[in-house]
Amino acid sequence: MKKRLLLAGFALALGAGYTLPAFSQVKPEILVKQRQAAMTLQGKYAGPMGAMAAGKAPYNADTVAFNTAMLDALSRMPWDGFPESTKDVSVKTAALPTIWSEPAKFKEAQDNFQKAVQALVAVSRGGDEAAQKAAIGAVGKACGACHENFRQKQ
Amino acid sequence: MKKRLLLAGFALALGAGYTLPAFSQVKPEILVKQRQAAMTLQGKYAGPMGAMAAGKAPYNADTVAFNTAMLDALSRMPWDGFPESTKDVSVKTAALPTIWSEPAKFKEAQDNFQKAVQALVAVSRGGDEAAQKAAIGAVGKACGACHENFRQKQ
Repeated sequence: MKKRLLLAGFALALGAGYTLPAFSQVKPEILVKQRQAAMTLQGKYAGPMGAMAAGKAPYNADTVAFNTAMLDALSRMPWDGFPESTKDVSVKTAALPTIWSEPAKFKEAQDNFQKAVQALVAVSRGGDEAAQKAAIGAVGKACGACHENFRQKQ
Repeated sequence: MKKRLLLAGFALALGAGYTLPAFSQVKPEILVKQRQAAMTLQGKYAGPMGAMAAGKAPYNADTVAFNTAMLDALSRMPWDGFPESTKDVSVKTAALPTIWSEPAKFKEAQDNFQKAVQALVAVSRGGDEAAQKAAIGAVGKACGACHENFRQKQ
């Protein structure tokens, strides 16, 4: 049986400013849990691709296509989980105060990450291994750049 | 500015048996964390739609379109997180032993959920409020049916 994954992806323009639903009723602790869940899953799907790009795992075009599709959705999920109400939350979080003291920079870091993911989406189905590995590397850099400024050192 | 969300969705045939990458190198505790993260986020995006379907929140077509797109991806994420290696894991989990003693039933419950999500995807952009609410209700039932048999009572 030919196993095939067709991914159409999301045609959401990054700058379109999709209106998020009101989350005022969601408890800060739940918002933290949800945003951490999104980060956990970004790691799940980005990690194996990072290993390929670094030559530590064999290249697999199907994995790139599938994991990129998952990352496409996941890249949209964490950002509504950082309202001011979560600044002094009682649960464990590695979020730094710079998230709220430098909101424009935080937004820019999010946008850079989402753009890097969309660039990977664009090449993820073309079968161009070199282009995919370069795009995966750029996603990794965008992850790291945001963590560098907005997440406690692990 | 006209805010618009175009979602093409995934054209992955549910029965296509996409080959998952080998997860043998991922620790069972990490697999549990990842599958729980997927469930947490399914709740984040299904919850507001469930409230709409139950008449407890105002209907919002944009939220249905966006949340369904997120759920489309998320509905594919938990299932590779339940290998036998996670059966006796040391971290807290509500997974019941029936997951491993009744694998065919567990798989059927997953498939029913994914089919219900795909049925919602199919109507999520048509603007048919009644059809969407019915499809949302069916997703909620599929969630509950799986939890009933395979998750500890909360």
